[in-house]
Amino acid sequence: MEILEGKQCVLPALQARQRKFRLLLIKQGTNPKRIQDILAAAEEQTIPIKYVEAAEIDAMTKGKSHGGLAAICTPKPALEIEKLVELCKTLRVPPFLLLIEGTEDAQNLGYTLRSAEALGAHAVLLKKHVWNFDGVAVSRASSGAFERLPLAQVENAEKELAPLQRLGIKFYGCIANAKRLIYDVDLTGPALLAIGGERRGLSGALREMCDGFVRIPMIAGASSLSLSHAATVVMAEAMRQRRQLQA
Amino acid sequence: MEILEGKQCVLPALQARQRKFRLLLIKQGTNPKRIQDILAAAEEQTIPIKYVEAAEIDAMTKGKSHGGLAAICTPKPALEIEKLVELCKTLRVPPFLLLIEGTEDAQNLGYTLRSAEALGAHAVLLKKHVWNFDGVAVSRASSGAFERLPLAQVENAEKELAPLQRLGIKFYGCIANAKRLIYDVDLTGPALLAIGGERRGLSGALREMCDGFVRIPMIAGASSLSLSHAATVVMAEAMRQRRQLQA
Repeated sequence: MEILEGKQCVLPALQARQRKFRLLLIKQGTNPKRIQDILAAAEEQTIPIKYVEAAEIDAMTKGKSHGGLAAICTPKPALEIEKLVELCKTLRVPPFLLLIEGTEDAQNLGYTLRSAEALGAHAVLLKKHVWNFDGVAVSRASSGAFERLPLAQVENAEKELAPLQRLGIKFYGCIANAKRLIYDVDLTGPALLAIGGERRGLSGALREMCDGFVRIPMIAGASSLSLSHAATVVMAEAMRQRRQLQA
Repeated sequence: MEILEGKQCVLPALQARQRKFRLLLIKQGTNPKRIQDILAAAEEQTIPIKYVEAAEIDAMTKGKSHGGLAAICTPKPALEIEKLVELCKTLRVPPFLLLIEGTEDAQNLGYTLRSAEALGAHAVLLKKHVWNFDGVAVSRASSGAFERLPLAQVENAEKELAPLQRLGIKFYGCIANAKRLIYDVDLTGPALLAIGGERRGLSGALREMCDGFVRIPMIAGASSLSLSHAATVVMAEAMRQRRQLQA
């Protein structure tokens, strides 16, 4: 069980309907108008509500940002690869996926997911160790994208990702020393963008699966973009190329 | 005076030569090889060094990331607008500037500066209240970009920015409801991209100065990009358009 705190985490989680909610805790005396969307969702999903003293919520939450609201619920479930393959088959546009092999911290992962949702990624694949984050911290930074986006877990890339390649999805690895710029590949077809961790870069296993490698042009001598910003730039480029498709 | 801590902050600050250093504090017993670039810069700039117990550095720094190294120095100086105008005149390519009117926090400002440097912004202008950040936290998140980038402070936009417009620099405001996409404007000429805070957006004073407004296409129903990620996407688009110029 996880404890989500604050409206900005609890509401998107309720709306996304991916977690199972055991209990909602609301501070006594909270104005029902302020949380009417929470109350409506709880009623619709028949989730029990307990009105408690603020101290009880303080004691069970980590941050000080709960604002009198917390929820006990299952972790965000991972989408199985078979389900991801099914999802890709039902899309009206060519699938566009992001794969992240490493991340700086939970907050930056959350920001990356926020960007992925805004820029039209249909799902995000996370290497298994990336999945071991603080789900609550990721959720908060993601502005709800963590709750809404389909997220798959990858342990053995070679085996698990082969079904995506058989669907015709092209894998592009983002690496600093690639010859081709991200602007010189066609991202309008079925595509997966793979990004390694900031320290180690893309793993050998993933490099071997890639159909091509791309980089973002940057100024020599400057420090490179952070992982979440690099991921955002490549996804924005996919969105730029695909904006006709979406229309 | 500010206290910079850790090699990743102190070294770029020394190399950028924008701050004045009063004293370097180094933990007794530190292997000189590990900090030879620090020692060389200190010698060249005749900065006194004091070898101290770790506890002394612990006591004067905030974080736990000093790794036995701290520096007492002046804050990063702001570039005066007149100097910025001069800088713009000496560039071999059309000036490309970023203006930030608000920011989420010091860390995200640091990331934005890191992106600005990597993506070729010649200088960044910060609204005066944005300047009131924790310079040390910004520096750390920026991977040194904060130390190297020319940063100007803006208080009265109308008055202070007019000289930039007289140079022929076009101002583009990034706002969520703009009709034009960032991809549909020519950013190869002299350009300033203005970005408001996440909550309030771009101020009226700045909107009035803008030659045009642009937005990043995003998926409807998703939460929008964070400020630092939105800034990064628009700067990457400028870099994409300008990559022929830089060559």
